[in-house]
Amino acid sequence: MTATHRRIVLARRPAGALSPEIFRLEEVPIPVPGPGQVLVRNHYLSLDPYMRARLEDSKSYAPPQPLDETMVGSTVGVVAASTSPAFAVGDRVLGRFGWQEYGVADENSLSKIDTRVLPMSVYLGAVGMPGVTAWYGLRMICEPKAGETVLVSAASGAVGSVVGQLAKATGCRAIGIAGGREKCDYVVQELGFDACLDHRELTDPTAMSDALGQAAPAGIDCVFENVGGVSLDAALSRINAFGRIALCGIIAAFTGELIPIHNVRQLLVMRVKLQGFIVSDHVTAWPGALAELGQGVATGRIKYRETIAQGLEAAPAAFIGLLAGRNFGKQLVKLV
Amino acid sequence: MTATHRRIVLARRPAGALSPEIFRLEEVPIPVPGPGQVLVRNHYLSLDPYMRARLEDSKSYAPPQPLDETMVGSTVGVVAASTSPAFAVGDRVLGRFGWQEYGVADENSLSKIDTRVLPMSVYLGAVGMPGVTAWYGLRMICEPKAGETVLVSAASGAVGSVVGQLAKATGCRAIGIAGGREKCDYVVQELGFDACLDHRELTDPTAMSDALGQAAPAGIDCVFENVGGVSLDAALSRINAFGRIALCGIIAAFTGELIPIHNVRQLLVMRVKLQGFIVSDHVTAWPGALAELGQGVATGRIKYRETIAQGLEAAPAAFIGLLAGRNFGKQLVKLV
Repeated sequence: MTATHRRIVLARRPAGALSPEIFRLEEVPIPVPGPGQVLVRNHYLSLDPYMRARLEDSKSYAPPQPLDETMVGSTVGVVAASTSPAFAVGDRVLGRFGWQEYGVADENSLSKIDTRVLPMSVYLGAVGMPGVTAWYGLRMICEPKAGETVLVSAASGAVGSVVGQLAKATGCRAIGIAGGREKCDYVVQELGFDACLDHRELTDPTAMSDALGQAAPAGIDCVFENVGGVSLDAALSRINAFGRIALCGIIAAFTGELIPIHNVRQLLVMRVKLQGFIVSDHVTAWPGALAELGQGVATGRIKYRETIAQGLEAAPAAFIGLLAGRNFGKQLVKLV
Repeated sequence: MTATHRRIVLARRPAGALSPEIFRLEEVPIPVPGPGQVLVRNHYLSLDPYMRARLEDSKSYAPPQPLDETMVGSTVGVVAASTSPAFAVGDRVLGRFGWQEYGVADENSLSKIDTRVLPMSVYLGAVGMPGVTAWYGLRMICEPKAGETVLVSAASGAVGSVVGQLAKATGCRAIGIAGGREKCDYVVQELGFDACLDHRELTDPTAMSDALGQAAPAGIDCVFENVGGVSLDAALSRINAFGRIALCGIIAAFTGELIPIHNVRQLLVMRVKLQGFIVSDHVTAWPGALAELGQGVATGRIKYRETIAQGLEAAPAAFIGLLAGRNFGKQLVKLV
C-alpha cells in the first residue's frame, strides 16, 4: 500500500476574475527519493503575487504554470527521507515544492535553514524572496541617501514592510501606501514609517497626489512600486529631480486590465530612472542580503507580520484574498 | 546715433496650438560690451524642441522663458568687438544669445569653435548640443553592444540621425521612425540605418507594433525615445529582456496633451530600465563626446542635414514648423 498526500494543480486558465474552481485538489502517492534526492514534508507554503502572472498562458519572465501540474511556489519543511549525504532526516529546508504536502527534489535544489533563532516561516518572508526583493530594489536601484524620502506601495506587505524599515535604518523619511486604516496604523506605529496613506480613501489621482504632497513636503526621491496605477502616477507628480523608481510589481495589471502611466512628462522633466526588476535575476546579491535581513529580524530591528491560512485546501481562497489585499503581511499556508 | 539690431521676444504665453503671434519682433540698440565682455554678431540661431516647454509657465528642469525678453537659444557667430583678452574680433564663437542678431556676453559664457574644417552651423547640430544628446543617451544610458538592435524615433532629426549612425558604428542594427517616405528613405539610404518606419502610415499602435516586429525580428534592446506616445508603446511591445530606454523627448506632450504609456507591464516583465535625461546635467561628458562627434563629421562618418530659414523674422514660423516635423534634419535660422 502506497502512502498518499495532497496537492493542488491548475485545472484551467482563468477567464477574468479568479475563482477557486480553476484549481483542483488531488490525492496522489508520496514520491520516493531516488539517488541523491530528498523527500521533504512541507510545513509552510508561500503565496506570492507573482503566481498570478504564471496562471496566464502569455509571454513573461517565467514560463506559465502548466495545466494539471502542481502549482509552483516556495516552501519550508522538514526532511522526511534522504539518499543524499548532504541532508539528514529532520533537517529544515527551503525548497520550491509548490502547493503540496510532500515533495522530492535533488539535493542541489534545496537549502538548509537555521531555525535555532528564527522561525521557519520567516524564510519565506522577510528573510526570503520577499525580503531580498525589498533589499535589492531599495539598495541597488533606489540607492537612497540619508535625508531622502522613500515612498513604498503595499507598505504592510511582505516586501513593502521591509523596504520601509530598511529605508528608515538608512536615515530616510519613509512613506507608505496601504489599503485600510488598520494596515496604515500598523505601518506607522509598528514598523516606524513616518506616514501612511490609505489608498481606499484616495482613489482619485488628484486626491492621492495632494495627500502625498502633505506627507512628503520635500518631494519624493525614491519610489518602490509594488502596485502601479494611481499610486505610481501620484508618485510621479511629486517626484524630485533625479528620482529613482524600482518597479517591483503591478498588481493592478495582474487582473488583465492595463493601467497606463499618465505622468510621462515627469519621467523626462525630472530625469527619473525607472527600473523594472525580478529578484531571481540577481543571484549574487542574495547571500549578503539574506545575512543582513536575518540579522535584522533576529535583533528585532526588522519586524514582520504574517497571515496564515490553515491546511492545503485553504490555499486557493488565501491566494485570491492575497490578490485582493485581504492578507495582512506575508501570506502563508500552514500545512502541518 | 546708436546702431540698432533686431530681436524676438515672447509676447505672451501660448494657449493651445502655437501661433506666430505669441512672438514679437523688436528693433533695439546693439549693446556695448563692458569690461571682460564680448559683442558677437550671430550668424546662425538654433531652434530646438526643448524651447516649446520653456514657453509655458510650469515647473520644469529650466525656468520658463520670461515674457518680453529675448527668446532663449544657442547661436554661433563672429566676434564684432571685445574687451576680453581671450577673444579677438573675428573669432568664431558658440554662445547662448537667443533669437537676436547681436549679443553681449561675459567671456566665460562663450566658447571658441574651429571652423577650419567644419562649418560654423554644425556646432549647433551634430557637433553641438543635439549631437552630445545623442551620444550621451546612447552611450551612457542605452549602452548597446554589437549585435543588439537600437530603435530611434525622430530618426532624421538633429539628435536621432546621430543616434542611429553611432549605433551602426557600434555594430548594432539601427531602426528609425520618421514622418514621411522622404525622411525614411534618407534615414536608410544616406544615414545607413537598417530600416525606417513611417509613423504617418502607422498611427495605430498595433500596426506600429507589427511593423516593428518585422523590422526587428530579434526584438529591440535599446530605445532612444525622442517622441513618446504610440512609438514608445510599440517599442515596449517589442522590447527584449533587460532593454534600456533613453527618454530624451516627448514632443507629443509638448502640445499640452499627455500621452500615457500603456505597456507598463512590459517595463516589469522585461526588466526594462527607462531613464529620462537632459544633456546639460552631464557637463563632464561633453568634451569627449564633442571630440568624437567632430572627428566623425570631419571624416564623413557622421552625416547630417540642415533646414535653414532665412533671416530672424523667419524664426517663429520655422520653430512652429519644427514642432510639426516640417524640418528635415537640424533646424537653423541664418541671420547673416
